[in-house]
Amino acid sequence: MASPLILVTNDDGVYAPGIRALLDAMQSLGNAFVVAPERDNSAVSHALTMDRPLRVLELEKNIYTLDGTPTDCVALAVNKILPDRPDLIVSGINPGQNLGDDISYSGTVSAAIEGTMYGIPSLAFSLTGPPPYSFEVAAGVAWKLASMALIWRQPAGTLLNINIPPIAAADIKGIRFTRQGTRRYKDAIQETYDPWGRKHYWIGGGTVQWSEGEGTDDRAVHEGYVSVTPIQLDLTNVEGLAYLEREWMM
Amino acid sequence: MASPLILVTNDDGVYAPGIRALLDAMQSLGNAFVVAPERDNSAVSHALTMDRPLRVLELEKNIYTLDGTPTDCVALAVNKILPDRPDLIVSGINPGQNLGDDISYSGTVSAAIEGTMYGIPSLAFSLTGPPPYSFEVAAGVAWKLASMALIWRQPAGTLLNINIPPIAAADIKGIRFTRQGTRRYKDAIQETYDPWGRKHYWIGGGTVQWSEGEGTDDRAVHEGYVSVTPIQLDLTNVEGLAYLEREWMM
Repeated sequence: MASPLILVTNDDGVYAPGIRALLDAMQSLGNAFVVAPERDNSAVSHALTMDRPLRVLELEKNIYTLDGTPTDCVALAVNKILPDRPDLIVSGINPGQNLGDDISYSGTVSAAIEGTMYGIPSLAFSLTGPPPYSFEVAAGVAWKLASMALIWRQPAGTLLNINIPPIAAADIKGIRFTRQGTRRYKDAIQETYDPWGRKHYWIGGGTVQWSEGEGTDDRAVHEGYVSVTPIQLDLTNVEGLAYLEREWMM
Repeated sequence: MASPLILVTNDDGVYAPGIRALLDAMQSLGNAFVVAPERDNSAVSHALTMDRPLRVLELEKNIYTLDGTPTDCVALAVNKILPDRPDLIVSGINPGQNLGDDISYSGTVSAAIEGTMYGIPSLAFSLTGPPPYSFEVAAGVAWKLASMALIWRQPAGTLLNINIPPIAAADIKGIRFTRQGTRRYKDAIQETYDPWGRKHYWIGGGTVQWSEGEGTDDRAVHEGYVSVTPIQLDLTNVEGLAYLEREWMM
């Protein structure tokens, strides 16, 4: 196979250490390009910038940045920046987990959703906490899984959401293919006051309860495995559709 | 049943005509509160604001706004603003369709995703184009479907994504329960230049190809039906999981 063309992006910005580690790993697999946001875009989800034009800057050879979201980066990379259609899109490495329902908020995962919409195999990588984050082991895992993705096919319309535990390579027990877990936040909004004494709310903090169900992404990581979850674009609840047709139809 | 508590939100901002039409319809069903963004948040997807505090303003009785995203509005409404846990969350009415893969970008749909995460029945309403948009018929449809949602149960972990065709009430053929279609954009990024001659890209425009498949949301609307799609939070591709375990397992 000719040297594969690989797009590297993230939601933490082009200068984040996680994307540099991922780029290093991808450069040993193929012809890697970075197209990433200028600044932190965590929790921007699948936001797309349509109300203003975007300017692309080439920072150094094959490394581009723009003043937009991770989704913008994938759309412009695929359609305008890269010399050809990429064989693989990788996003990350995010410092912090993207597990369970939280992936819906994630810029890291959304970049892989956008890539999947173009029919390109796409992987999202996150290193679970707590900080400080050292990306060396995670980059090795990313190298291995990206190699596999270049050889084997992914299910159609499906990205892989990958979470890596923050432990030494020798302590990682292996890879588990998992399903998306659920989480519930408790007291995740704090009250604070501005200098004029006016109440504000700040989203964050609180405590998290994980499903810890059999076969879930969160359990795999907590037990020391790399979690690989196939995430599909089609959100239809097929069983729910049958229920509605039975119970709601007038 | 006691008068139900209903949260009304949107992604177009508290002053948008679509949310006023929706509020009017909901006020005849129960005790309705608006918590909506100060300004247009279209295509913000499920973005959550965590990097700064949010200030809530009460504009008039039971109508609140904040300088954040639709997801922020639902989180603050449920946890901090409403007098009790709402019985129903409705989002919209969005001027323009939210069909197929595009729902992933939608602030309107994401508000309903956030409500579903709290286990509250949630409906997203969109009026398909072209403009100009007249919300009267759509508000009547919203009234009917919200009434049904207060009587019958929705499938667990599932919101309803509702698209209404832009035709007279007498011409609407009925309600169809549908699956999410797919769409492909072509030439959806335009090139433009700033006053200093520097090239920029502007996402938008181009042509759209719909799947027009049997049972899809886009086909229902194009044929004159109200489309109701059950959208689930669990994005796991269950068949894809079996495939990966068979083909990728080392």
